[in-house]
Amino acid sequence: MIQVGIVGGTGYTGVELLRLLVAHPEVSVSVITSRSEDGLRVDELYPNLRGHLDLAFTKPDVKRLSECDLVFFATPHGVAMEMAPELVAASVKVVDLSADFRLQDTEQFKQWYGMEHTCPDLLTEAAYGLPELNRAAITGSSVVAVPGCYPTAVQLGFAPLLENGLVDTARLIADAKSGVSGAGRQGKIDNLLCETSESMKAYAVPGHRHLPEISQGLQRISADSVGLTFVPHLTPMIRGIHATLYSTLCSTLTGQSTQSLQELFEQRYADEYFVDVMPAGSHPQTRSVKGSNQCRISVHQPQGQDVIVVLSVIDNLVKGAAGQAVQNMNILCGLEENCGLSQVALMP
Amino acid sequence: MIQVGIVGGTGYTGVELLRLLVAHPEVSVSVITSRSEDGLRVDELYPNLRGHLDLAFTKPDVKRLSECDLVFFATPHGVAMEMAPELVAASVKVVDLSADFRLQDTEQFKQWYGMEHTCPDLLTEAAYGLPELNRAAITGSSVVAVPGCYPTAVQLGFAPLLENGLVDTARLIADAKSGVSGAGRQGKIDNLLCETSESMKAYAVPGHRHLPEISQGLQRISADSVGLTFVPHLTPMIRGIHATLYSTLCSTLTGQSTQSLQELFEQRYADEYFVDVMPAGSHPQTRSVKGSNQCRISVHQPQGQDVIVVLSVIDNLVKGAAGQAVQNMNILCGLEENCGLSQVALMP
Amino acid sequence: MIQVGIVGGTGYTGVELLRLLVAHPEVSVSVITSRSEDGLRVDELYPNLRGHLDLAFTKPDVKRLSECDLVFFATPHGVAMEMAPELVAASVKVVDLSADFRLQDTEQFKQWYGMEHTCPDLLTEAAYGLPELNRAAITGSSVVAVPGCYPTAVQLGFAPLLENGLVDTARLIADAKSGVSGAGRQGKIDNLLCETSESMKAYAVPGHRHLPEISQGLQRISADSVGLTFVPHLTPMIRGIHATLYSTLCSTLTGQSTQSLQELFEQRYADEYFVDVMPAGSHPQTRSVKGSNQCRISVHQPQGQDVIVVLSVIDNLVKGAAGQAVQNMNILCGLEENCGLSQVALMP
Amino acid sequence: MIQVGIVGGTGYTGVELLRLLVAHPEVSVSVITSRSEDGLRVDELYPNLRGHLDLAFTKPDVKRLSECDLVFFATPHGVAMEMAPELVAASVKVVDLSADFRLQDTEQFKQWYGMEHTCPDLLTEAAYGLPELNRAAITGSSVVAVPGCYPTAVQLGFAPLLENGLVDTARLIADAKSGVSGAGRQGKIDNLLCETSESMKAYAVPGHRHLPEISQGLQRISADSVGLTFVPHLTPMIRGIHATLYSTLCSTLTGQSTQSLQELFEQRYADEYFVDVMPAGSHPQTRSVKGSNQCRISVHQPQGQDVIVVLSVIDNLVKGAAGQAVQNMNILCGLEENCGLSQVALMP
Repeated sequence: MIQVGIVGGTGYTGVELLRLLVAHPEVSVSVITSRSEDGLRVDELYPNLRGHLDLAFTKPDVKRLSECDLVFFATPHGVAMEMAPELVAASVKVVDLSADFRLQDTEQFKQWYGMEHTCPDLLTEAAYGLPELNRAAITGSSVVAVPGCYPTAVQLGFAPLLENGLVDTARLIADAKSGVSGAGRQGKIDNLLCETSESMKAYAVPGHRHLPEISQGLQRISADSVGLTFVPHLTPMIRGIHATLYSTLCSTLTGQSTQSLQELFEQRYADEYFVDVMPAGSHPQTRSVKGSNQCRISVHQPQGQDVIVVLSVIDNLVKGAAGQAVQNMNILCGLEENCGLSQVALMP
Repeated sequence: MIQVGIVGGTGYTGVELLRLLVAHPEVSVSVITSRSEDGLRVDELYPNLRGHLDLAFTKPDVKRLSECDLVFFATPHGVAMEMAPELVAASVKVVDLSADFRLQDTEQFKQWYGMEHTCPDLLTEAAYGLPELNRAAITGSSVVAVPGCYPTAVQLGFAPLLENGLVDTARLIADAKSGVSGAGRQGKIDNLLCETSESMKAYAVPGHRHLPEISQGLQRISADSVGLTFVPHLTPMIRGIHATLYSTLCSTLTGQSTQSLQELFEQRYADEYFVDVMPAGSHPQTRSVKGSNQCRISVHQPQGQDVIVVLSVIDNLVKGAAGQAVQNMNILCGLEENCGLSQVALMP
Repeated sequence: MIQVGIVGGTGYTGVELLRLLVAHPEVSVSVITSRSEDGLRVDELYPNLRGHLDLAFTKPDVKRLSECDLVFFATPHGVAMEMAPELVAASVKVVDLSADFRLQDTEQFKQWYGMEHTCPDLLTEAAYGLPELNRAAITGSSVVAVPGCYPTAVQLGFAPLLENGLVDTARLIADAKSGVSGAGRQGKIDNLLCETSESMKAYAVPGHRHLPEISQGLQRISADSVGLTFVPHLTPMIRGIHATLYSTLCSTLTGQSTQSLQELFEQRYADEYFVDVMPAGSHPQTRSVKGSNQCRISVHQPQGQDVIVVLSVIDNLVKGAAGQAVQNMNILCGLEENCGLSQVALMP
Repeated sequence: MIQVGIVGGTGYTGVELLRLLVAHPEVSVSVITSRSEDGLRVDELYPNLRGHLDLAFTKPDVKRLSECDLVFFATPHGVAMEMAPELVAASVKVVDLSADFRLQDTEQFKQWYGMEHTCPDLLTEAAYGLPELNRAAITGSSVVAVPGCYPTAVQLGFAPLLENGLVDTARLIADAKSGVSGAGRQGKIDNLLCETSESMKAYAVPGHRHLPEISQGLQRISADSVGLTFVPHLTPMIRGIHATLYSTLCSTLTGQSTQSLQELFEQRYADEYFVDVMPAGSHPQTRSVKGSNQCRISVHQPQGQDVIVVLSVIDNLVKGAAGQAVQNMNILCGLEENCGLSQVALMP
């Protein structure tokens, strides 16, 4: 059994990691840390785990974590980069769900996260953990940066178009809608049921931290320069991201048939267990992936015009966080990539 | 008191009309029709009206309706165009909340609604009832077509840009999110709580009936040819539309300051009681208009680039239907336009 | 115009008071205080008030408040009893939405609210502001304690039975379900959408602060000693209380017909504008009172047995707080009791 | 592998059965029937099953079903009793999720379900499938009646009290709150999101079909005659039942300590995998069992008085339907009772 540790397990990605890991056939969770909840049994905070996990939170302790084979960070930004170097030095694999190792440009990191990066050397070694686009780099890596939730949905949706140079990359639009769990488990007025239920809003239109991450990822797979407008929205539901992606066919491709786009997407993801290209004409619902590690995608060409619309849905806590972290763990540990990750979505 | 009738009062726009009309100081509802609910007291179907309305549904009867000063149609498409000519002949004003008089092109009507238009002559006289864009035509008209919910939010958001020729009209994108009440009060599985709650989806991406209506409206105010991609989404809430509108500044205007856009929007709607341009940097929430006839708008220019993002929110049942119908009635009847329409949104 | 002030206007009862007062024909809000938001325009915090209220929060200042005719307290417990004596001395009417003047027994107050009562003399003069049960005492009073939300729904439901000595008062059960807005607008994890949506729970079963208040009120109208079991529940909705009340017919009354119970309730509330006894066999929905000051009640006698079930619904923010406060204001100021309070519930 | 068939798989219990069965290590679903959806792939109706189930709906065919080892009925009432006899004759085990085999009294069945029972002989052999109360009878049975959702939550909560004769059984009260999925997947106006969201109501107070089933079950474990008042409520959530149970300690037991009640419950369910007695003072949330087959229970004695309050929560689609059906299948087939049923609840 692989011994894993979790740093910062009190948030929603933490409990979701635990939900997946306690059912994972090859893993044993041996330590979970929280400064604020030191000593509390995990199943007192999360009663859904009663009978599944006999563990209490402890204070973060690098020595104890170093005895693990792999450590997940489900912490606020800035924590993983402090502790990762020592763990890596002790040959512990690190899978970081925070943003610390996502942006390769440390200036950008500073600009968007308001802090200096403290281990730029390790950063250059870190792999961006979106397996469907970057699997080779993940294998054998010591540090994996699990992508943000929006970046996962957006990059998987745009990839087939950009990899094949089909669309004008200077005018990409990603209109994304997220459930409230993306905002985390903190006592903020903005995230109260009474503030978010029965309402819809855009937020961070001037600039969201996932913008540079998405741009970085799309640029990697695009021959041309990427210009992206990204507008996230808060939606009155707990889980789910729905990304609606707009791009314009390159002028030389006008007349490209929708059928060929459908085939392109199907072929691109034919071997990917976690990306499901829906039948032509489909409208994927976020509930069809609730609790599962799937990304479901459909591609449309409305009215046969040259604007391509891609719909991409994930569960932000699974494929957008904890599930993708486990998928990366599976790769790092040489397991089947879908080991412990074949949950059927909860519907209704 | 103005005597009004309502044809087809059992749906959500019907009960919303009643909520507004029973509190309107200049109106008396004298007849409300429903074939299916003939004889039933209205407040048995809608107990929120207990104590406010002493009326029962009756079968539609043109003679009885002809005694009204004004008749609202809150019916499925195809009903108003059958009854309107006779009412107009009897000097009754008609305010139609269905689509029968929205599209001036009868071929388009046939294409999108699957039926021939039966009174094309009256159609040419009908005014499109979006007062902020078309007030002069409404005044003195005998038939008003109340705009669809999406068209209201989208046109009010794009108008200042198109009227001033600021953006590339060939590549307009309207990503719109609606509450479930927009789907009406019919026993369809798709609209059950268990099918729509805790989920988000796009629908009708290949083509939605509001697409030609929006295009027609935008074309009227644009010097250049309009190309629109319109993607509606179903959102797990009862009321509200959030339209997120994307357009690109004309190349000659690159460098246009956000400040000037803010001023442009503020000036355009300075005299409009029902359109509220929010302060720069705002993100309007649909709940801020819940139950009110307001449209709240903000304009953004993310990262100072040339893509303009307009956020426009309404309550689909009020400014997107019943409230706008009453606003049109006020105009037709020579009342103050906001008479009976100054409800404060219910928040939280 | 009556000049009113509001102390502590940033919470949900505060904004709801404002929604009602800006539309009230006889009132002008001249001051609204908040220590934390001093200087902020009210409509920046609550954009639904844009265009309706030109006022900013100011620090609480008894002198300025003393210039009002009436002051509402929408504050946490303990504030009103500090400021009320000075205001009353200045002939200002006080309508307190907190618990400070609800419990006549200062020992009970200390036990349940954890603080000494600081003006027991004024407390004895205070009227309990449930007009349907205590109208005479409110008229002419200088301080009114607006009842809690649960106590309003429960007392109105039980009153006809207890006033007539029909049921065994030693075994009353009130199973009450509340929307989340009852928990207020504070940044607590427990009230996040992700903690409360898609879930139901009881809370405070060992003892809730509204228990002594309800018991006090029921005891006043009962000849026999009252024993009450009160279990509140948190329900995934914003507004609404549904109280399901169980009592057993006195053994001498077994065989009492349901019909006579229906008549009893109808007669009891025949002259009450804000209490609506629904037709026999009805199941009132909380949405039928959303945004309105109504209490809707139905009475059942399942299977003709001797257990009486009363269903009583209110909007916790209106009849359970702000609306009832305005109703009390109307009484204190000699206005029609329903002046400014005839809103139709928002449905759907 | 055990070959199972499902009759009537288009509803919510059907898809939930499939979610559990495709992940069950000892089962293969070989046939699923639906008259209305004959020929449709199951994963077209339920995209959450894409990649998990390669099967289409077929017309019900007893011969084909007879080749199964076990057949589940997830049908409306009246179907199972028509087909079960032939299947049983063919040595196929039957697990019926409908009401056909729940009530042993055929007169009661006729009264509450409006139809004659067509196989009273088989009915007498059928076991009531609440394993925690009736395990011995289930083992070796050929037909199992899976209990209703409310009856499961209510009986498990009351059982320790009634089995030990602790409370007055003549005055039991079950106030139960259910998510909307309990109403099934049918196109009824009453179950639309716009009718059920943001609202709470009781329903069927004069009499609900689960009343006789609960009474029958409680009577079996009680020495004294059972009198039950049962009030179900509709709650704005998809899944979950919260039963709040009230009973009065027998007068001879007044003074019974809460501690001893806690121990009584813990001991009663110490060996039950699917019943979790929470720590003293707990308030179980329905979300803590969402998607899992658990029932979580807590017991309270408010104010130390003689009214006992038991809180019992389940997921109505799992322990209240499909999960319990699989639990019964496991018993019938000699598997571990929790085989394939150890899902952790989805939280948040």
